[in-house]
Amino acid sequence: MNDKIIGIIGGMGPKATIDLYTKIVDATEIEKEQDHFRVIIDSNPKIPDRTEGILGIGESPLNALIETGKNLEKLGVDIGCIPCITAHYFIEDVQKELSYPILNALEELNKYIKENYSGVKKVGVLATTGTRKIGLFQKYLTDFSIIYPSDEIQKECVMEAIYGKEGIKHGNLGNKPLQLLKRASDELIEKGAELIISGCTEIILVLKPHHITKPLIDPMDVLAKAIVNTAKLA
Amino acid sequence: MNDKIIGIIGGMGPKATIDLYTKIVDATEIEKEQDHFRVIIDSNPKIPDRTEGILGIGESPLNALIETGKNLEKLGVDIGCIPCITAHYFIEDVQKELSYPILNALEELNKYIKENYSGVKKVGVLATTGTRKIGLFQKYLTDFSIIYPSDEIQKECVMEAIYGKEGIKHGNLGNKPLQLLKRASDELIEKGAELIISGCTEIILVLKPHHITKPLIDPMDVLAKAIVNTAKLA
Repeated sequence: MNDKIIGIIGGMGPKATIDLYTKIVDATEIEKEQDHFRVIIDSNPKIPDRTEGILGIGESPLNALIETGKNLEKLGVDIGCIPCITAHYFIEDVQKELSYPILNALEELNKYIKENYSGVKKVGVLATTGTRKIGLFQKYLTDFSIIYPSDEIQKECVMEAIYGKEGIKHGNLGNKPLQLLKRASDELIEKGAELIISGCTEIILVLKPHHITKPLIDPMDVLAKAIVNTAKLA
Repeated sequence: MNDKIIGIIGGMGPKATIDLYTKIVDATEIEKEQDHFRVIIDSNPKIPDRTEGILGIGESPLNALIETGKNLEKLGVDIGCIPCITAHYFIEDVQKELSYPILNALEELNKYIKENYSGVKKVGVLATTGTRKIGLFQKYLTDFSIIYPSDEIQKECVMEAIYGKEGIKHGNLGNKPLQLLKRASDELIEKGAELIISGCTEIILVLKPHHITKPLIDPMDVLAKAIVNTAKLA
């Protein structure tokens, strides 16, 4: 039962990796401990910052992503995943170098919204400026119209909540980043968003569904369920 | 900074592995994401039940522990650990087969209590009956006199809190198991325990330091700090 080995190309950051693995464990139906999937995690925070790499202001993370993925290959994983949305910019180039399939969180997200929120057309996305600029959500969420916060809210709320001195990447999961992210969600809902996607793995550590008036979708939640289902049937 | 690679021989169970990794991340001082340690986790819940293996009523987990440890060796870990107290019964036999050192949670616990609670002689242990029977705490906590709950309290409180219908392994983290564990701690304190060790990864999910009148020590907390300190200085 549940004999496939799941691989996690992780560490971007470590807490997002822990969050995804927790969701995989919770999404697995078991009768005893041994029914859980074996999961190999290379949690590699040394992978250069994805946003900086994409914007050309820092080293590209591609080689480190491939090396981390190859580590999992050495240990025989059957299916992989990457708990970092921004890293999905490189997913096709990483996939080319690996013999096992990596599940694409954004493709799974498009499928999930279509199946579970029929009628929804306008989707609001909270994500880093880097992720916005590279158009990942537009690329993969082909069945929806995507809206983002205004430039001002993006900078002063979303980026500040994630990267600011009192932000999530500095280990602060308290009220400060939460208030910033709520302001950004409220703006998206005012602009007509029918649901909000937490498009950065750090956001969901702070902003929870009960904090906002529209559904909040965590792509990592969708990814965890998709990987468990795929591995179960493989 | 923090360039050593930490390995976790995990999956016993997955939630205990997640708990230890979370503690390692929280115990690491960082300025940016890349300052975190790279951590390779083989979370292998297929490892046979440790208690059953020791008591001779199930397959021995030794070979699976070694195989899991060797997986981490292939990926070049510098230092390893095992987030399962009962598995420490096999630690010396696992260590013999591996080229990197595994930190022993119980040796670290002995050191930690000596350094932080000078004068303490009598230590109370809350653990499953299986863990008690194999004498791991007596073996490694050589500087202390170990006391356990009476047979009656062990059965009706400790085991009931962990395995009972309204117990922790059935997903109940509420008042019922807490009251049972408090009664067991109170008995240990009446018998002269100067501090209490939560010798089972389930217990700390319910019983917290503020619930009892003596210090409550979580060996996984001690292990996380020890591995971070050791890796930092290595």
